[in-house]
Amino acid sequence: MARIGIVGGTGYTGAELLRLLVAHPEAEVTMITSRAEAGRRVVELFPHLRGHVDLTFSQPDPQRLKTCDLVFFATPNGTAMTLAPALLEQGVKVVDLAADFRLRDPEEWAQWYGMGHAAREWLEKAVYGLPELNREQIRAASLVANPGCYPTAVTLGFMPLLEAGLVDRAPLVADAKSGVSGAGRGASVAMLMGEVGESFKAYGIPGHRHLPEIKQNLDAVAGAPVGLTFVPHLVPMVRGIEATLYARLRQTDQDLQRLFEDRYAGEPFVDVMPAGSHPETRSVRGGNQCRMAVHRPQEGEMVVVTSVIDNLVKGAAGQAVQNMNLMLGFDEDAALDAVALLP
Amino acid sequence: MARIGIVGGTGYTGAELLRLLVAHPEAEVTMITSRAEAGRRVVELFPHLRGHVDLTFSQPDPQRLKTCDLVFFATPNGTAMTLAPALLEQGVKVVDLAADFRLRDPEEWAQWYGMGHAAREWLEKAVYGLPELNREQIRAASLVANPGCYPTAVTLGFMPLLEAGLVDRAPLVADAKSGVSGAGRGASVAMLMGEVGESFKAYGIPGHRHLPEIKQNLDAVAGAPVGLTFVPHLVPMVRGIEATLYARLRQTDQDLQRLFEDRYAGEPFVDVMPAGSHPETRSVRGGNQCRMAVHRPQEGEMVVVTSVIDNLVKGAAGQAVQNMNLMLGFDEDAALDAVALLP
Amino acid sequence: MARIGIVGGTGYTGAELLRLLVAHPEAEVTMITSRAEAGRRVVELFPHLRGHVDLTFSQPDPQRLKTCDLVFFATPNGTAMTLAPALLEQGVKVVDLAADFRLRDPEEWAQWYGMGHAAREWLEKAVYGLPELNREQIRAASLVANPGCYPTAVTLGFMPLLEAGLVDRAPLVADAKSGVSGAGRGASVAMLMGEVGESFKAYGIPGHRHLPEIKQNLDAVAGAPVGLTFVPHLVPMVRGIEATLYARLRQTDQDLQRLFEDRYAGEPFVDVMPAGSHPETRSVRGGNQCRMAVHRPQEGEMVVVTSVIDNLVKGAAGQAVQNMNLMLGFDEDAALDAVALLP
Amino acid sequence: MARIGIVGGTGYTGAELLRLLVAHPEAEVTMITSRAEAGRRVVELFPHLRGHVDLTFSQPDPQRLKTCDLVFFATPNGTAMTLAPALLEQGVKVVDLAADFRLRDPEEWAQWYGMGHAAREWLEKAVYGLPELNREQIRAASLVANPGCYPTAVTLGFMPLLEAGLVDRAPLVADAKSGVSGAGRGASVAMLMGEVGESFKAYGIPGHRHLPEIKQNLDAVAGAPVGLTFVPHLVPMVRGIEATLYARLRQTDQDLQRLFEDRYAGEPFVDVMPAGSHPETRSVRGGNQCRMAVHRPQEGEMVVVTSVIDNLVKGAAGQAVQNMNLMLGFDEDAALDAVALLP
Repeated sequence: MARIGIVGGTGYTGAELLRLLVAHPEAEVTMITSRAEAGRRVVELFPHLRGHVDLTFSQPDPQRLKTCDLVFFATPNGTAMTLAPALLEQGVKVVDLAADFRLRDPEEWAQWYGMGHAAREWLEKAVYGLPELNREQIRAASLVANPGCYPTAVTLGFMPLLEAGLVDRAPLVADAKSGVSGAGRGASVAMLMGEVGESFKAYGIPGHRHLPEIKQNLDAVAGAPVGLTFVPHLVPMVRGIEATLYARLRQTDQDLQRLFEDRYAGEPFVDVMPAGSHPETRSVRGGNQCRMAVHRPQEGEMVVVTSVIDNLVKGAAGQAVQNMNLMLGFDEDAALDAVALLP
Repeated sequence: MARIGIVGGTGYTGAELLRLLVAHPEAEVTMITSRAEAGRRVVELFPHLRGHVDLTFSQPDPQRLKTCDLVFFATPNGTAMTLAPALLEQGVKVVDLAADFRLRDPEEWAQWYGMGHAAREWLEKAVYGLPELNREQIRAASLVANPGCYPTAVTLGFMPLLEAGLVDRAPLVADAKSGVSGAGRGASVAMLMGEVGESFKAYGIPGHRHLPEIKQNLDAVAGAPVGLTFVPHLVPMVRGIEATLYARLRQTDQDLQRLFEDRYAGEPFVDVMPAGSHPETRSVRGGNQCRMAVHRPQEGEMVVVTSVIDNLVKGAAGQAVQNMNLMLGFDEDAALDAVALLP
Repeated sequence: MARIGIVGGTGYTGAELLRLLVAHPEAEVTMITSRAEAGRRVVELFPHLRGHVDLTFSQPDPQRLKTCDLVFFATPNGTAMTLAPALLEQGVKVVDLAADFRLRDPEEWAQWYGMGHAAREWLEKAVYGLPELNREQIRAASLVANPGCYPTAVTLGFMPLLEAGLVDRAPLVADAKSGVSGAGRGASVAMLMGEVGESFKAYGIPGHRHLPEIKQNLDAVAGAPVGLTFVPHLVPMVRGIEATLYARLRQTDQDLQRLFEDRYAGEPFVDVMPAGSHPETRSVRGGNQCRMAVHRPQEGEMVVVTSVIDNLVKGAAGQAVQNMNLMLGFDEDAALDAVALLP
Repeated sequence: MARIGIVGGTGYTGAELLRLLVAHPEAEVTMITSRAEAGRRVVELFPHLRGHVDLTFSQPDPQRLKTCDLVFFATPNGTAMTLAPALLEQGVKVVDLAADFRLRDPEEWAQWYGMGHAAREWLEKAVYGLPELNREQIRAASLVANPGCYPTAVTLGFMPLLEAGLVDRAPLVADAKSGVSGAGRGASVAMLMGEVGESFKAYGIPGHRHLPEIKQNLDAVAGAPVGLTFVPHLVPMVRGIEATLYARLRQTDQDLQRLFEDRYAGEPFVDVMPAGSHPETRSVRGGNQCRMAVHRPQEGEMVVVTSVIDNLVKGAAGQAVQNMNLMLGFDEDAALDAVALLP
């Protein structure tokens, strides 16, 4: 069994890593850290793990972390870049679920995240962990930057169109909606149920941190800079992201359904639904799938893609386990084959 | 007191008309009809009206309806066009909350609503009841077609830009989201809470009945046909619509905030929020406001407008009362001045 | 116009006081205080009040507060008892929406609230502001202790039975359920939508602060100590309290429906529904009503009462305005006659 | 692999059986029937099963059903009693998820379910499928009556107290709350999200069909008739049941925590939480656990038990699979060991 560590285990992504890894046939979580909760049993925070997990939160001791084969960082932005290098140098593989290694340009990172980058030398070695884009590099990687939740849903939805050069690179519109668990488990007024229940709003229109990450992805698959407008919204539900994507077709004689099906044939976690479908977030709740559908409304010049994921699974912990599976040579879908929970 | 009738009072818009009109200083509901519930007291269906409403549902008797000064049709599509003409000919004013008189072209109506139009002669006389667009015609109208919920939110959001000729007429993108009460109070599997709770999805991408209505509005304010992509979504909440609108600016030196503020100065029910705002649907819950904000993300060439309404108030019954107030010469905000319910 | 002050206006009860008082014909909020938000416009926090309220939060300056006719304390427990006495001595009337003056016994208060009582001399003068119990004393009061939300729903439900001596005084069971706004607007992990959305639980079983308050009320109406078990629960919704109450009948030949209707005949804000009814919280959302129904299941020896209120209205701000109306000689239902918002 | 049939597969329990059985190592669903949807692929109704299930709904053909080793009836009440006997006579084992075989007395069944019982001879042979009560009889049974959702949560919670004779047999109070999926997937107005979203209510106080079932269970474990008051409530969430149970202790010197822990030691699906806990429904979402806690508030004479289950899993399909595992000699937790989904 591979020995797995989780740094920063008190948030939703940490808990979700535990939930998924319980069922893993070849990996075992041997330690989980939290400065605030050190000494407390995990099941006191997360009663759904009672009977499945017998771990206690510990201080993030580098000596003990080095005994792991792979360490997940489920920490706030800015933590992994300070702690991961020492582990990497000891041969421990790392998957960072935060944003520290997602942007290739450290200046851009500093601009969006408000702090200088502390591990520039590792930025170049990090592989962006979207298996549908970078599977082989991930297999060989020591350090994987696990994608953001919005970037996963948006990139997978636009990718077939941009790779094939079928749409104008500008304007691209990504209107994305997320359940509240995407904001994490930190105390705040803004995310109280009294504030976000039974209401809907856009947020971050002037600029959201996932914008440069998405743009970096789309620029790469398009082979040239794209013009992207990205607007996230907050949905009064716990889990799930839906992205509705708009682009103008350069030619309208293409079979878009077939394009998408061909692009994702063989992908274990991307499901192109039949023509005319409207994916629901609940169809992927708890599962690692990205379900999508492609439309050309009124047979016009615009293409509309809708793409849904569970933000905590394919948008975070599930994709991280998928990356781990690739990095450690396991079956890519190990521990990720559960059926989503509907209703 | 003006005598008001409501035909089809068992749905959400009928109940909302009652709720609003209870507080009206110059109008009184004297009859409310329902074939299915005739003989039953209104408060048996709608307990929140206990102590405020003492009406009983009756059969839709044309003789009695003719005693009203104004009749609201809160019926399924296709009913008002068969019943309203006889009332109109007797001098009774009519506000139709369904779609019967919204589209000016009867062929287009037949195509989208699946039945021939039964009152073509009244189509030309009907006034589209968006006061911010047609206030004076509404004052003089006998028959008002109350706008759809999505068309209200989308039209008000795009209107300043298109009137001023500031954006390309194509592509326009309207990504709209609605709470479940927009689907009405009819029995269905699709709208069970077990089906739509805790989930999010787009629907109607190939074509939604509000598309031609919105396009008709935008064509008119733009003075030429627009290219519109409209995608509605279903939000797991009861009330509220949010529309996020995207267009490309023809020039980027315009003060968009001021444009919007000037356009809606003096409008009692449109509230342009300060620059940088993100309107929430809860801020208009139960109220007749449309709150909006205008953004130019990253100082680029795209403009983003977000617009929120309560689909049952400004998107239906509230706007209908606003139209009634204009048609009967009352204060435009009579019975519509309540503060929204937040949280 | 009476001059009204609100101390501690950034929580839900403060906002709700503003919403209600906007419509008051004889009272006007002239100042609202907040240490944290002093200098900020109220509508920046509460956009639903845009167009209705033009106040700015100020520091709680005693000199300015003394210019008010009545001051509401919408502050955390322990604040009113330190600030209110100086105002009271100047002739300013006070309604405290917190718990400072609810328990008559300062020792009991200290035990449940974890601090000594700072205004014991005012404890005796304070009137418990449940108008259905203490209307005349409230009219004459300078200081009113506005009841807790659970105590309002539970006391009104048990009162007719205990006053009439129809049930055993023990065991009484009050199984109560509240929406999340009852927990206030302070930052916390426990009340994140990610924590409480789409889940249900009991809490506070070993002892909740509303227990001694309810027991004090029931002891008084019963004329002797009762044996009460009170279990509160958290419902994944924003507003509303439902209490299901259980007691054993001493005699089963009584017409319970009539008992309840007679007890609350003439009460403007208590609505005894017809026999067989099941009140819904939404039927009182935003309204000041308490709706209730009484059942004797299977014609047995147990009586079951269900009682619903909006925790922020009859359970807090609405009842506070009702008390103000009594204290200042206004119509009891002034500003409280709006229809609830359903759906 | 055992061959499994599902009769009536278009409801939530049918879908949930499929979800669970996908992961079963020794059982395979070979047919699923629906009169209304015959010929349609299962994944068209239930997209979360895409990639996992390749079945098509078929007519309920008795000849084909006889090829199964075990058949689940996920049908409306009254269906299994007409179809199951023929299968049973052919040696096919049956688990009925409806109520047909739950009540031992056919007269009582007729009274509560409004139709005569069509298979009285099988009533005596049927085993009530609560493994914590009847494990050995279930192993030997041909026909298992799968318990109702409320009866599962309530019976498990009261059982240790009544078996030990620690509480008065009357009055017992079971105040139970359910998510909306408990009402099934049939079209209705009452269960629209517009009707039940963001609201809470009691229902069925005069008498709910689960009352005689619970009473039958409690009478049996108590060894004498109990006096039970059972009030169900509807919670605005999709999954989950919480039951809060009240009884008067005959003696207060007993260690209740230990009593519960001892009673359920070794039970794979009952989790007695530590003293002072408050189980949340989300902690069992999607899982087969019943989590409970026992309290003696204020060290008084009343005991309060709270018990949570997922109504579709331990309250329906999961318990049905647990029963199947016992009947077919599989590991009791086969296909039931997934971690619940939190948040």
